[in-house]
Amino acid sequence: MKHFPLSALPARPAPDSRFSGPVWMQELTSCAMRVTFTPGARTAWHRHPHGQTLLILSGSGLVQKRGEAALSFQAGDVVTIAAGEEHWHGAAPDSVMSHFALQEGQTEWLAQVTDAEYKG
Amino acid sequence: MKHFPLSALPARPAPDSRFSGPVWMQELTSCAMRVTFTPGARTAWHRHPHGQTLLILSGSGLVQKRGEAALSFQAGDVVTIAAGEEHWHGAAPDSVMSHFALQEGQTEWLAQVTDAEYKG
Repeated sequence: MKHFPLSALPARPAPDSRFSGPVWMQELTSCAMRVTFTPGARTAWHRHPHGQTLLILSGSGLVQKRGEAALSFQAGDVVTIAAGEEHWHGAAPDSVMSHFALQEGQTEWLAQVTDAEYKG
Repeated sequence: MKHFPLSALPARPAPDSRFSGPVWMQELTSCAMRVTFTPGARTAWHRHPHGQTLLILSGSGLVQKRGEAALSFQAGDVVTIAAGEEHWHGAAPDSVMSHFALQEGQTEWLAQVTDAEYKG
């Protein structure tokens, strides 16, 4: 058994090839990650073979499914993304947003989210 | 894609056969559950075939591995339990404690935690 504060999990920078703007990742388990997005930072478009569940821990952010308008979310919200659904998520322009991300299998990474897409 | 507050997930009572005291469960995914323990409430002794990770969302609580002293934890802490490790967890006597529990596979449920065990 191990016991430690969540803040003690080492934060490593998310790769520039898959994220825009400074993003930090803390791996809790092989399927569970805390991800902290600085204001305006976001993932690239991507898909999960078995879907993904986000639990927003702090701040506010945006999530968009391909072909739909972006949705706003905030601390205490849950977002579930279906298997194979092309989407991105990230912080609002004025918020540091941290979420817990749960997913299984290999993420399929696609194009970066342009500023025009982010601004909607 | 679905988007809702975590509080909107239906809370169902945890079974008396596996928990002592009122405990409420909200299922986020098949492997991820929010569990809220009222003061003094706790799980029975149990084991997970692939281990378990707890992320404490609010309040303070206790976790004990068989043969060791109980440890206290609080909001913001993480507890990881190894595969097959016999243990229990629950709220402190004066706290409503809510944690997020991540595990895979079938839990093996054992004896209830007696008041004497709980009080250490």
